[in-house]
Amino acid sequence: VGEFELIRQFFMQHQPHPNVVLGNGDDAALLQAAPGHVLAVSTDMLVQGRHFFADVDPYALGHKALAVNLSDMAAMGAKPVAFTLALALDAAQRQPAWLQAFAAGLLDLAQTHGCALVGGDTTAGPFNVCITIMGEVPAAQALKRSAAQVGDDLYVTGDLGRARVALEALRSGWGLHPQHEVLASCRERLERPTPRIQTGLALRGLAHACADVSDGLLADLGHILHASGVSAQLDVDALFHSPACHPQVRALPRHQALTALLAGGDDYELVLTAPAAARAALEALQTQWDVPLTRIGRVLPAQGHGPRCELVNAQGQPFALPAGVELQGFDHFA
Amino acid sequence: VGEFELIRQFFMQHQPHPNVVLGNGDDAALLQAAPGHVLAVSTDMLVQGRHFFADVDPYALGHKALAVNLSDMAAMGAKPVAFTLALALDAAQRQPAWLQAFAAGLLDLAQTHGCALVGGDTTAGPFNVCITIMGEVPAAQALKRSAAQVGDDLYVTGDLGRARVALEALRSGWGLHPQHEVLASCRERLERPTPRIQTGLALRGLAHACADVSDGLLADLGHILHASGVSAQLDVDALFHSPACHPQVRALPRHQALTALLAGGDDYELVLTAPAAARAALEALQTQWDVPLTRIGRVLPAQGHGPRCELVNAQGQPFALPAGVELQGFDHFA
Repeated sequence: VGEFELIRQFFMQHQPHPNVVLGNGDDAALLQAAPGHVLAVSTDMLVQGRHFFADVDPYALGHKALAVNLSDMAAMGAKPVAFTLALALDAAQRQPAWLQAFAAGLLDLAQTHGCALVGGDTTAGPFNVCITIMGEVPAAQALKRSAAQVGDDLYVTGDLGRARVALEALRSGWGLHPQHEVLASCRERLERPTPRIQTGLALRGLAHACADVSDGLLADLGHILHASGVSAQLDVDALFHSPACHPQVRALPRHQALTALLAGGDDYELVLTAPAAARAALEALQTQWDVPLTRIGRVLPAQGHGPRCELVNAQGQPFALPAGVELQGFDHFA
Repeated sequence: VGEFELIRQFFMQHQPHPNVVLGNGDDAALLQAAPGHVLAVSTDMLVQGRHFFADVDPYALGHKALAVNLSDMAAMGAKPVAFTLALALDAAQRQPAWLQAFAAGLLDLAQTHGCALVGGDTTAGPFNVCITIMGEVPAAQALKRSAAQVGDDLYVTGDLGRARVALEALRSGWGLHPQHEVLASCRERLERPTPRIQTGLALRGLAHACADVSDGLLADLGHILHASGVSAQLDVDALFHSPACHPQVRALPRHQALTALLAGGDDYELVLTAPAAARAALEALQTQWDVPLTRIGRVLPAQGHGPRCELVNAQGQPFALPAGVELQGFDHFA
């Protein structure tokens, strides 16, 4: 059985989908958005050694490869519709068992979100996974990075930093090691992130600006601030003592906990701004969710120095960062 | 200047485009198709050693990476709208001069076809280029592979085989070598293919089935035959003595010429079927084009053995293939 046959066998699915006029197998797929909707499009490329380790579990990698793309849809308030999958496969990935597990991880998550695999490309080469995802959103309700307004509250979904802690444990950083007990509760976050699709959809009409936290809170919040031409005040105490900081992260030495919280990558939570008038509605929504939404600051006018994020404590005074905190975001070239 | 800044500098463009509601720089781009149209989506991944040589001219590679995707739009009769670009860059590609030339080759072709770069991803890693392209086409006029009908004529645009001849010369195959005179006229076809966008648009409403010739004529025609459940008769004499066979290809030893014509990859011409009633309209269109459209056979009912392509001579008798012809298509795993 050749690789093309394996790909066909594991990946080709032709389930009816309201947005898919023509699926896999032609020169292109044909998609339609619902009336009044636009198509949101995003692409992510994952390579070995930078986004995952060589010995990664293939099911988890299939899940994560799609999850990071779904997360971009969540951040736009878009409903996932379809995706394309391009793969460069080395010998190790051309084993039927590997491909089958990878496909299962990918397609299980796709099915959860009603997202159809509509096309792809496969070649031999250094292992590489590139997914382009498409979703639909009413044009006026897309959660753009540029939509933050002065006076908005600042929120984050879920909790931050556990993916970074898992990464450090796996590579024996921060005095941790792969057998350390923190890895058990943190590894799932690194390898099987949960895209906040339902949250993103519920935020339509409530939130102003939104981005997903893939590079770290300060880096991704920075994208919102620059796109919107505003500054922000981030209450580090509120963040540190909220459900957005998992007890396992809070228990770390303080400089590590703050590094994970403020600059840990790969969390795939959402950072968003919303007007104060939306507080009650957001509170009400939260009772329906199994994911916390934590208010961590507010949006301010940009001063002469341009958009920046000011870290403050519970008293609104500058937060004194302990030595050893590393605030640069996750850099895929680093 | 970091790589991200270079990427921003060379690739970020924000020209207004009627289909682009939101371009580069957010979690996703927002696209809309014109009323009554659907979005055609296709993805291609290019890796070094398989789709191009390590010393490839970066401008040519930028051109080709987009051209192979545009060719898929042509094959659907779709008008190119936008594309995303994911790049894994090795040290050699992270040089400003390299990136700038690559971007220029890509964006010059994009501009020619009014196709906007709306998103992307960049990482360090073994060099890899993955483009996903989107176009628009009226739903009922898409040129699907499955639309061939018994009695249709079989056509091919342009000429076939020169890309394969260039590839052989570059790797000193077929008794050729990089200094051989054929390379001069054939190299452009391999490195700077011309996607048949205008032709694809003009074929709307005239052609039935269509595919682009990327894997070789017989392989890509085979896709049409299988998708449509029909067979075909291909007049090899007509093909060989037509404008679809460039004099430089015809001048090769006959087994090499036939290999290039029938199974040469990377041509990015179109193979299509159209009803006999469309002959006059296709002839009339041709006078407006600078690319030949050659009738090379016809579509027949599939017999008990399933879809197949029968090679015939000018007298309609089985074509006797000389020894040494290699008919398997281009295989990205081979």
